[in-house]
Amino acid sequence: MAQLVGNALIGQSGGPTCVINQSLVGIVEAALADSAIRNVYGAIHGIKGVLEERLIDLGRESKAALEAIAVTPAAALRSVRKKPTREECERAIQVFKAHDIRYFFYIGGNDTAETAHILNELALAEGHDLRVFHVPKTIDNDLRVTDHCPGYGSAAHFVACAFMGDNQDNRSLPGIKVDVVMGRNAGWLTAASALARVHPDDGPHLIYVPERVFSVDAFLSDVERVNKQHGRCLVAVSEGIHGAAGESLVESKEVDSHGNAQLSGSGALGDWLGERIKQGLGAKLRVRVDTFGYLQRSFAGVWSEVDATEAREVGRVALRTATAGQRRNGSIVILREPGPGYRVRYDVTELRNVAKETRPMEEHFLRGDNDVAPKFLDYARPLVGHLPVTARLSDYPVAKKL
Amino acid sequence: MAQLVGNALIGQSGGPTCVINQSLVGIVEAALADSAIRNVYGAIHGIKGVLEERLIDLGRESKAALEAIAVTPAAALRSVRKKPTREECERAIQVFKAHDIRYFFYIGGNDTAETAHILNELALAEGHDLRVFHVPKTIDNDLRVTDHCPGYGSAAHFVACAFMGDNQDNRSLPGIKVDVVMGRNAGWLTAASALARVHPDDGPHLIYVPERVFSVDAFLSDVERVNKQHGRCLVAVSEGIHGAAGESLVESKEVDSHGNAQLSGSGALGDWLGERIKQGLGAKLRVRVDTFGYLQRSFAGVWSEVDATEAREVGRVALRTATAGQRRNGSIVILREPGPGYRVRYDVTELRNVAKETRPMEEHFLRGDNDVAPKFLDYARPLVGHLPVTARLSDYPVAKKL
Repeated sequence: MAQLVGNALIGQSGGPTCVINQSLVGIVEAALADSAIRNVYGAIHGIKGVLEERLIDLGRESKAALEAIAVTPAAALRSVRKKPTREECERAIQVFKAHDIRYFFYIGGNDTAETAHILNELALAEGHDLRVFHVPKTIDNDLRVTDHCPGYGSAAHFVACAFMGDNQDNRSLPGIKVDVVMGRNAGWLTAASALARVHPDDGPHLIYVPERVFSVDAFLSDVERVNKQHGRCLVAVSEGIHGAAGESLVESKEVDSHGNAQLSGSGALGDWLGERIKQGLGAKLRVRVDTFGYLQRSFAGVWSEVDATEAREVGRVALRTATAGQRRNGSIVILREPGPGYRVRYDVTELRNVAKETRPMEEHFLRGDNDVAPKFLDYARPLVGHLPVTARLSDYPVAKKL
Repeated sequence: MAQLVGNALIGQSGGPTCVINQSLVGIVEAALADSAIRNVYGAIHGIKGVLEERLIDLGRESKAALEAIAVTPAAALRSVRKKPTREECERAIQVFKAHDIRYFFYIGGNDTAETAHILNELALAEGHDLRVFHVPKTIDNDLRVTDHCPGYGSAAHFVACAFMGDNQDNRSLPGIKVDVVMGRNAGWLTAASALARVHPDDGPHLIYVPERVFSVDAFLSDVERVNKQHGRCLVAVSEGIHGAAGESLVESKEVDSHGNAQLSGSGALGDWLGERIKQGLGAKLRVRVDTFGYLQRSFAGVWSEVDATEAREVGRVALRTATAGQRRNGSIVILREPGPGYRVRYDVTELRNVAKETRPMEEHFLRGDNDVAPKFLDYARPLVGHLPVTARLSDYPVAKKL
């Protein structure tokens, strides 16, 4: 293929992460160094900004500004949850034509990849020569093909730190503590709570993920058993847990245009579980519930260095792959090299391999109905980076005298 | 007074903080260097451990272990919420006598100071020569006399980082976002959300503290106005907000022996406010609620350096003041030196000055019914230490072509 010269456009879509702007900056810096790219633009609020022709010139940002934006959580371009209709896609192609957009980079999760796929198909059908690349991000870690997703390591780091602290808190003031963690379809983020364990009796003592059917009766008997054994019980629960028929435990009222029901931004599931525990195991029990909520994806100043580095590189790879001309479209994936030590390489997969569908945790990462397997810890540990050190007193006893 | 030689005992009580173990280690290291202290013991679960004679020998911990414990959140000695009865206090004095405890340090908030005060009075009445010192800690920052409380700076740092990120998140995916912050009687921690603001239109746009009467109608009209102005609205709400008669907005079921109703460990208040917004302003609005919960007091790896340093020093000062012999009892306070630049000195006040009562935010720290005054920012900024940098794109517009 002859090199395609024109403008590049970047959008961000879906729930933000702490490192999604690293990918944005990675694309911009690679674009500024690439002769195939005349201008590098951003669309405000993703596809919505494309439709409204709200484009900004990212090439005019200073290097220092870009570096500051790279470490700022959430979507600097602002985000959107929108699956465009056929008419809207046609409008988007018109905007691309009008602004000579030849490269479109859409940073997001599986729904974003689906939108990229639809736009790509339509551009082909309309004969507009366009390169469309999906740049992965999701704290849920549930994209297919890739070993892991940019954004996951930082959110998993946050969740591990939260459980390290909450385990100490629960040990200080014992009781039953339930923490609800993000993750609609897959338990990756909830599973990261296991990284908090240092001592054999450390929590989380129970971990519930959407890959398993959730039974309230089994849950209550698990909690009762742990509480009897340790005098306390710290539980990690994914917001996506469901019954045998896939039904949510708590009714949700909002559904977005991709068909996703609202789970986060409410304490309903946690409070419901807390009530079940009190009803089932005793109203006098000290039961506390926290729903970690949006802090997991946007807390400022806490991230995984590995994740930040990879998120930046994924952006650069997307731009370079697009202008190299070997592929017209695709989604960037991270593949882990075999052998000891943590090393990755970057590759590209078809948009349709990543679009729409999600990846649950594999069976070998889980243990029983309420825990993760050691293999998961090996998988996740390099992704979250350096975790803080916590310690316990040795409790050298003083002999009783009374 | 002749120097009193004997054993020292330390307890931790009330809700933990990220730096409460700094104070513990501060007392221990000063005790190990002081000839008046034969042994330095810890009581497991505070006064409960005293009553059960569950004492441990802190003098046997290595220097490295103590340093690791200093940076571990929550109470390494484990905590308790318990106001001892008269009989229990008599039992505690017996335990003190049996173990030759001549120095008792109780690390905690105003309820802890009250227990220390009661124990001190009884020891005096029973003729047991005992030094009793309250070592302050509370993320609520609501102790009297002291300029600020160890534990507050770190929790305020966490809250500021949370709002810095959530402001970006809310800007990415606009809507109405309510974040519920800890603080039963005083709005200090909720007010720290204002430190997150960088640009004039940054959230939190509205801040509600217990120092003001909360009116749902005023709240709804505030939210509506901000949402009209900015197309979004980020709200900080203290868990302790209440109506004109002091009544909570949401019923609480649990009350501890100090008479405090459970507020944290539930999403009830936040969800209730979210429902009011939807009912009052429109069911189609994107409304999300997070209740920050225990992360604010125990998240591992995030703290204010200033706070950690002061928490350590407060422990050392308590031990040195106790053995110096000028005072038999008291509570350590931090006083801010006048003039430019942030400098503090440490002093001692009577236990009864700190016991039971709390300190609300002073009037000059508040602005109207839903914001803080610039003076509060001046007060709080040195306490939270270095906050992360966040940045925005300049949004250089690309001219429309369609």
